[in-house]
Amino acid sequence: MSTDPIALAQGVLAGDRRSVARAITLIESTRADHREAAERLLHEILPQAGRSIRIGITGVPGAGKSTFIEAFGLHVVEQGHKLAVLAVDPSSPRSGGSILGDKTRMEDLSRDIRAFIRPSPSGCTLGGVARRTREAMLVCEAAGFDVVVVETVGVGQSETAVADMVDMFLLLLVPGGGDELQGIKKGIVELADAIIVNKADGDLAVAAKRAARDYTNALHLLTPASAAWTVPVLTCSALERGGIAEVWTAIGGYRQTMAAIGRFDERRAEQAHAWMWNEINETLLQTLKDDSSVATQLPALEREVTAGRMAPGAAARRLIKAFRHGN
Amino acid sequence: MSTDPIALAQGVLAGDRRSVARAITLIESTRADHREAAERLLHEILPQAGRSIRIGITGVPGAGKSTFIEAFGLHVVEQGHKLAVLAVDPSSPRSGGSILGDKTRMEDLSRDIRAFIRPSPSGCTLGGVARRTREAMLVCEAAGFDVVVVETVGVGQSETAVADMVDMFLLLLVPGGGDELQGIKKGIVELADAIIVNKADGDLAVAAKRAARDYTNALHLLTPASAAWTVPVLTCSALERGGIAEVWTAIGGYRQTMAAIGRFDERRAEQAHAWMWNEINETLLQTLKDDSSVATQLPALEREVTAGRMAPGAAARRLIKAFRHGN
Repeated sequence: MSTDPIALAQGVLAGDRRSVARAITLIESTRADHREAAERLLHEILPQAGRSIRIGITGVPGAGKSTFIEAFGLHVVEQGHKLAVLAVDPSSPRSGGSILGDKTRMEDLSRDIRAFIRPSPSGCTLGGVARRTREAMLVCEAAGFDVVVVETVGVGQSETAVADMVDMFLLLLVPGGGDELQGIKKGIVELADAIIVNKADGDLAVAAKRAARDYTNALHLLTPASAAWTVPVLTCSALERGGIAEVWTAIGGYRQTMAAIGRFDERRAEQAHAWMWNEINETLLQTLKDDSSVATQLPALEREVTAGRMAPGAAARRLIKAFRHGN
Repeated sequence: MSTDPIALAQGVLAGDRRSVARAITLIESTRADHREAAERLLHEILPQAGRSIRIGITGVPGAGKSTFIEAFGLHVVEQGHKLAVLAVDPSSPRSGGSILGDKTRMEDLSRDIRAFIRPSPSGCTLGGVARRTREAMLVCEAAGFDVVVVETVGVGQSETAVADMVDMFLLLLVPGGGDELQGIKKGIVELADAIIVNKADGDLAVAAKRAARDYTNALHLLTPASAAWTVPVLTCSALERGGIAEVWTAIGGYRQTMAAIGRFDERRAEQAHAWMWNEINETLLQTLKDDSSVATQLPALEREVTAGRMAPGAAARRLIKAFRHGN
């Protein structure tokens, strides 16, 4: 792979899809020289990034996420937008990934020139995957994609990471007889800026309406993230492509409402600030873990602490001393 | 203050209340020599710590937390236990603290020889307060207090910190016409191992029962933290001291259930492990922030990042470079 970051950045800025793909591959690389080139690339494209609406989507397996994203994506590009779909799925290696691993799941959308679909990077840690996805998002924006969808599975810590990198977070559910939230991890409902009950078609049409009503009632028990926005519960049929326009309208409404109170830019500024400190945190910790004195002492100290034989604070100070002074 | 940690540790281990108070004061001190003495003290008492049930309690102002803790505490000591009450309230300085600042709020309990009440330390950051409270908990345990209550207000980040240091987390609510959770921060309900609706007396008795039923229904929409434990919703009247025995019974049931599946010890081991890494994290970050090269560059970099003019990752790496190499 040629890693001339300036040339690559020019390709990205010209909207060249192959350049976008290669830039993201560069960003995902863990090689030190690639990392340096990626930094250079990001520096070049940054002034043109940020001009999109960033949408996070989660839902349990079986909620119909791919079908929804395809229907949603086709609607959005038909409205004249350019759409990028990224994924955060720390659990699956790229080859056999459970989400977006198989582009044929979104056959029509993946063939559309106005859309760009990218599976989850094969980074091992959630932190690593999230970091790369954030940067990939900037690349897509710089290439002119003005709607960026970040997909994740609704069963882990990844939802918080995704909610922290997008402007709006959607939760996709299916009607299921009152137990719809079983399988959704605690706290995810509260991250949602909108809830969408999918599969409102055929036999499930009535159940979907009822589920939407139930969620609306349940949401009354939760304090809203913003007094200016009441989390809507919509129904749709991704299969029959019904109700999709309403979702896009709700997203527009959210954006407008948040922008009007200055919250849209404020949220982004907060996210950028938190992202910087996350990076500092992770890099510092990694440097500590990579330190040979630390590595020597860590296993025994962790054992003592979890067994309750050593105070966690004492172990922490011992390790930091090893890190700073090599003993 | 004499800071001979060995003598102080002996006093603590003998169950001397004044030694406990002085040991906690030592732990709360930020002076470097005090910190060293505190370490030594903790090392001495650690083998005798851990033998308590650690209970976190939160609730909005007005939920009757003090009245509840007093009624609960008196019940518990009458059962033959020794009870310590600590507080985590990063928002209030000790002098004018909104919780436990005024011991007269718990007049009967604070006069009871079997109870020990300690207001929130005056540390500024939540991390600092949480760290000191964790260590104070160990001191109380080593002194023979076998029930430790950690109180916090239900309006900030402190609930997560408290939930992460206790065996069981209680949420205290009041009946309030369907809007009971307004004012409770998002996500707090999901931390609760039991919910207690207080003020089930007089005119509110019926409303309290109804609120308990509503919460029970709402909880069905959330995935339980453990399949072995269904979060109970109890009602009580702290004022009339009714329903308090049932709360204590529920705590016993929780402890037994968790112990039976090995989850009690496992949760503690996880907490100790997380605590160690938290300490490492916080100490590393503080060291970085205290670094003069970092301090010089930080304001400008934070400005660039929040304005979207600099990639957060690039700013992070610049700061870490300054920290590690002084430029």
